Amino acid sequence: MTTKTIPGEPTRASMKTAIPGPRTEELRARHGRHQDARTVHVYQDAQKSLGNYLVDVDDNVMLDVYGHIAALPVGYNHPDLLAAWRSGRFDWAAGYRPALGIAPPREWVELVERTMMKIAPRGLTKLMTVTTGSEAVENAIKAAFVRHARVRRGGAAPSAEDLAACMNNAQASANALAIVSFEGSFHGRSLGSLSLTRSKAIHKLDFPAFPWPMVRFPDVKFPLAAHAAENRASEARSLEQLDATLKAGGGNIAAVIVEPIQGEGGDRHASPSFFREMRRITRAHDVALIADEVQTGGGATGTFWAHEAWGLDDPPDIVTFSKKMQLGGYYCTEEYAAPEPFRIFNTFLGDPIRGAQLEVIVEIMERDGLIAGARETGEVLVRELVGLAERHAGLLEGARGAGTFAAIDVKDAATQLRLLDALRQRGLEVGGSGTRSIRFRPALVFGPRHVAEAISILDDACKAL
Amino acid sequence: MTTKTIPGEPTRASMKTAIPGPRTEELRARHGRHQDARTVHVYQDAQKSLGNYLVDVDDNVMLDVYGHIAALPVGYNHPDLLAAWRSGRFDWAAGYRPALGIAPPREWVELVERTMMKIAPRGLTKLMTVTTGSEAVENAIKAAFVRHARVRRGGAAPSAEDLAACMNNAQASANALAIVSFEGSFHGRSLGSLSLTRSKAIHKLDFPAFPWPMVRFPDVKFPLAAHAAENRASEARSLEQLDATLKAGGGNIAAVIVEPIQGEGGDRHASPSFFREMRRITRAHDVALIADEVQTGGGATGTFWAHEAWGLDDPPDIVTFSKKMQLGGYYCTEEYAAPEPFRIFNTFLGDPIRGAQLEVIVEIMERDGLIAGARETGEVLVRELVGLAERHAGLLEGARGAGTFAAIDVKDAATQLRLLDALRQRGLEVGGSGTRSIRFRPALVFGPRHVAEAISILDDACKAL
Repeated sequence: MTTKTIPGEPTRASMKTAIPGPRTEELRARHGRHQDARTVHVYQDAQKSLGNYLVDVDDNVMLDVYGHIAALPVGYNHPDLLAAWRSGRFDWAAGYRPALGIAPPREWVELVERTMMKIAPRGLTKLMTVTTGSEAVENAIKAAFVRHARVRRGGAAPSAEDLAACMNNAQASANALAIVSFEGSFHGRSLGSLSLTRSKAIHKLDFPAFPWPMVRFPDVKFPLAAHAAENRASEARSLEQLDATLKAGGGNIAAVIVEPIQGEGGDRHASPSFFREMRRITRAHDVALIADEVQTGGGATGTFWAHEAWGLDDPPDIVTFSKKMQLGGYYCTEEYAAPEPFRIFNTFLGDPIRGAQLEVIVEIMERDGLIAGARETGEVLVRELVGLAERHAGLLEGARGAGTFAAIDVKDAATQLRLLDALRQRGLEVGGSGTRSIRFRPALVFGPRHVAEAISILDDACKAL
Repeated sequence: MTTKTIPGEPTRASMKTAIPGPRTEELRARHGRHQDARTVHVYQDAQKSLGNYLVDVDDNVMLDVYGHIAALPVGYNHPDLLAAWRSGRFDWAAGYRPALGIAPPREWVELVERTMMKIAPRGLTKLMTVTTGSEAVENAIKAAFVRHARVRRGGAAPSAEDLAACMNNAQASANALAIVSFEGSFHGRSLGSLSLTRSKAIHKLDFPAFPWPMVRFPDVKFPLAAHAAENRASEARSLEQLDATLKAGGGNIAAVIVEPIQGEGGDRHASPSFFREMRRITRAHDVALIADEVQTGGGATGTFWAHEAWGLDDPPDIVTFSKKMQLGGYYCTEEYAAPEPFRIFNTFLGDPIRGAQLEVIVEIMERDGLIAGARETGEVLVRELVGLAERHAGLLEGARGAGTFAAIDVKDAATQLRLLDALRQRGLEVGGSGTRSIRFRPALVFGPRHVAEAISILDDACKAL
């Protein structure tokens, strides 16, 4: 095992109160006067939390496999990250928040070269940085639209009519453009990215959406070996529908966007061959393939980017990121870099303090072999989840994962909610996915001993249900 | 004068090379291999820059009145901000980037209560935080849509048809909804906010847009006293068009969004009575009034929020912010807080490290009287710009401002570009606005001696044109 332990990390969860505890409820009441605090699980003691263990304001110590919705790369308060803050290494990013497109610090260029491009997906040489996943997706689809319109114009300049019409939101050729997304997908919550999101009605209700088409995602069942034929058939049906949708698009579809694993919509997986075929089809239609790695990127699936597991010769055109990367953005091929400046642009273009932290995080990942660690720990985790499902047949099923990016299904939505609560009461901070899955999104410092503890809590909670 | 000087701040700009200098060009070539570097003015020495003076990698010292597109609140490397970083005051925000809606640090609640609500616009008790201006606007209009649909349903639950249709981007009642924005406005670049932006075609070309209506912004001319009647008539025409647009909207318009000063589209102003009348009209139509203060908020106009100058009894329903505030978000009334959790939500919900910095910035502003300082310095700046326009009649006109948020027009677009370059060559880092304005967005530590230097550079550059 390559995962290094973090000195002083608690040896196990220990609960002082029910969850949420009285101090959390007191803070929720205060917080709720000004912000929506109903979604808060617990208020956290940010400085006592360490490694895989969240400490809340009621002194409950919880093993965290939710990781702030998959956004915790090296656990809480990693000593190397704190040491970097204290050493002055981030001082260049401490004295103001710059507009990185106007007057970037010299160190930003060095950071891009030294770290951001080192971790770039193979074949993607261009980088755009923002601060969140929604903005990453918004800009990625803009890059696809820019490239699509450029190809369609055959290099000609935009017409005076188009330039005038777009100011009235009335450029017909642009308004006809579309992006294809998959049933069950989550790509963000701003109105462009939300038009691609298909996970839950409460995310979309009452908001205007672009009339963009949806394709069903394969209904892959686990264990794979027991469902090989039906899984293949389900994937084939999705690919047929994708091909038909692109044909029906009349040349107006600029991109297909897909998560390597549907991280919000039920942890649905598909096979590498499914994605390879998707690459072939999008290439045949000259449509961008966008791998949305906001939740999967950053090592938890056992490779830095989840799409590495697809075995593509021809990479995705665009790969988005955020969450564990601490800032958002996308990588793309030269083809998808806008020829004109200021078309893909904004004031901040990311945040250098988060980029500077990412560099230390990547150093920790490399030194401690955390990606290999996630792969190895993930094998243990999924094996244990499979065993758990066997012990609790009728309650649990469908254990699956790539690295520690894992999930298990609960028999129904009501039981999922009861189980989530039972787990939190026993010291496991965990989240749901879709309507009946439990998702595991631990930090990269999650090791076999944490797996054992999580499984023990799961077992106990299942018995008590 | 209440503005405090920053110890060690350069006494004046001093240029070693032409702009851009050779080290900037060397970095641009490196940076441009991976990111779009064509928009960069200079690469910055982030640690040598101090107060109002940017130091670039060629050791040029420039007086900065652009402030990273209006995002520099207390100048570069304010000693109190650096001292706070070093004192451990930000340690609670240093060890990981949290999901503020799931497990926020206790200190976040205290920060919201102590600082974010202290600076809240009068009458607005609710706060939503994100990381950028585009996200602030996206979420503000979502809040308006949620409230509009709720009122329209009269408190009834959404229908099963609506819940199903929205998953296909086909909820007809939602797709008919619209937000009104003004000609020349800038509200962001994600596809929802971009449908509201009307400043430049290059921002909008080839991107799908919602078919939302636009109203002309008044064509207010300066000096105000010389154009009183035509300004009043122009404002009246805009208000008539606004009223007609809301009438024609058939109950589908959820909000009107407006910048107090059009910060990107030519620094266009309107009178307090124009905005008061806009408030009356939006109230009469039961439509949200959103004051987009992404660029104007944070003190530079001489009040913390620019809309304070409107003298409203009945505040805007929603006020957005970002830029100088270092993180994004909006304040709103109770009426615009979503009744259901998770409708307005995302992973990060802002960034506590930027919130922690904002608290120190607000402390500096209060202790040093920086808002009063901006008001006083702004009076000097605008008076000097008026004098400059008189000395360069035929070249410059229309000096105007609120606080130090000021501008002057150049005779045409080609001359604007030449003047911007001539200013930068002489050590004034400055930006354009619209097609022929020069905008001033200095930090709040910009004082009369900086005004004198900026005016001297402007005078010299104008003579040389």
